[in-house]
Amino acid sequence: MKGRGLFITLEGGEGSGKTTVIEELGRALEQRGVPYVITREPGGIEIAEKIRGIILDPMHTAMEGRTEALLYAAARRQHLVEKVEPALERGMVVLCDRFIDSSLAYQGYARGLGVQEVLTINSFATNGRFPDHTFYMDIDPEQGLSRIAAGQGREVNRLDLESIEFHQKVREGYLIVADMYPQRITTIDASRAKKEVAAEINNCLSALLKDYLI
Amino acid sequence: MKGRGLFITLEGGEGSGKTTVIEELGRALEQRGVPYVITREPGGIEIAEKIRGIILDPMHTAMEGRTEALLYAAARRQHLVEKVEPALERGMVVLCDRFIDSSLAYQGYARGLGVQEVLTINSFATNGRFPDHTFYMDIDPEQGLSRIAAGQGREVNRLDLESIEFHQKVREGYLIVADMYPQRITTIDASRAKKEVAAEINNCLSALLKDYLI
Repeated sequence: MKGRGLFITLEGGEGSGKTTVIEELGRALEQRGVPYVITREPGGIEIAEKIRGIILDPMHTAMEGRTEALLYAAARRQHLVEKVEPALERGMVVLCDRFIDSSLAYQGYARGLGVQEVLTINSFATNGRFPDHTFYMDIDPEQGLSRIAAGQGREVNRLDLESIEFHQKVREGYLIVADMYPQRITTIDASRAKKEVAAEINNCLSALLKDYLI
Repeated sequence: MKGRGLFITLEGGEGSGKTTVIEELGRALEQRGVPYVITREPGGIEIAEKIRGIILDPMHTAMEGRTEALLYAAARRQHLVEKVEPALERGMVVLCDRFIDSSLAYQGYARGLGVQEVLTINSFATNGRFPDHTFYMDIDPEQGLSRIAAGQGREVNRLDLESIEFHQKVREGYLIVADMYPQRITTIDASRAKKEVAAEINNCLSALLKDYLI
């Protein structure tokens, strides 16, 4: 492991409950007195925020898929070097909501740019710094989206409005990526109650922390 | 060759005379009645201009080298798909002032990110669309920079103020890249008078046009 901290990412489709679970994990770490930080891209990093502004500007209808993938990779790089790596160097646990695997599943697989191609530019962006461990929250998109529609969680965003076929492809993409990294990625059945899911991940995290706290 | 046009790029260090030569080539094509366009990144493409704005903002002192390289690749992608490829599809000759080889020489070699690494993200950006031919204007940086200092050409920019060692490294980088692509890249002795240089490149271009006009 590079640095002294522990870099954990949460991944999953819309309505998979990542955000709730990550907050539960934060509370569990706090109770144990483990220093941690919760983040997600662009994470308040000025350059990354500006890049994200270009990606999300609704006037940019002409933005091509590869341009977008390169911009996400650029924002990831800056968030990593300005926020994630300094926290790891201070020995903290970093809980990050989405990271490289989101690009592989959404852009590489679901948008059809190619998982290997998107991995290549993201390997450049991360310069070998992959998460120490990743929890992929697996859920049937119909169930995930119905949670959002029922108001369990957050507001509807641009991605929620994609077709159900798109969200099915995202899930297929994630399952392919989880197969590529069986050591790093743990697939979690996220169809259960969030408390139950958080308890399972918390158990896994305890095992990871044993090595980390040594 | 993809498309029906001809994609020509001009490369070289500061003060190598690219801009003057490209204008001479444009006039020569006009006299022959060959439709052409002269461009350079970001080329007036709105998304690419905004990306460039982030790169060049002097407030962004924290911008990391890999972030910058990914942003250049993103701007390149958008300029390519919005401006270069449509012109090639209309059968035009595209004369482009700097392209992929600039990133390889400046960022890959001179800035030390690695020529192969920077090539990888740029291959993603260009999706296989390399220039049909490239003229590398080779000149000793001392001579090139003294041309700029003497006011022969353009105003001094941020890159001119780098150390002479940096410009020497850029030249070394270009020579390595020219060796990687002996078929595509013609190295031109740019220490001579610009008229002489333009005449040589124009002769090479005539040979390329023969295949193109068939």
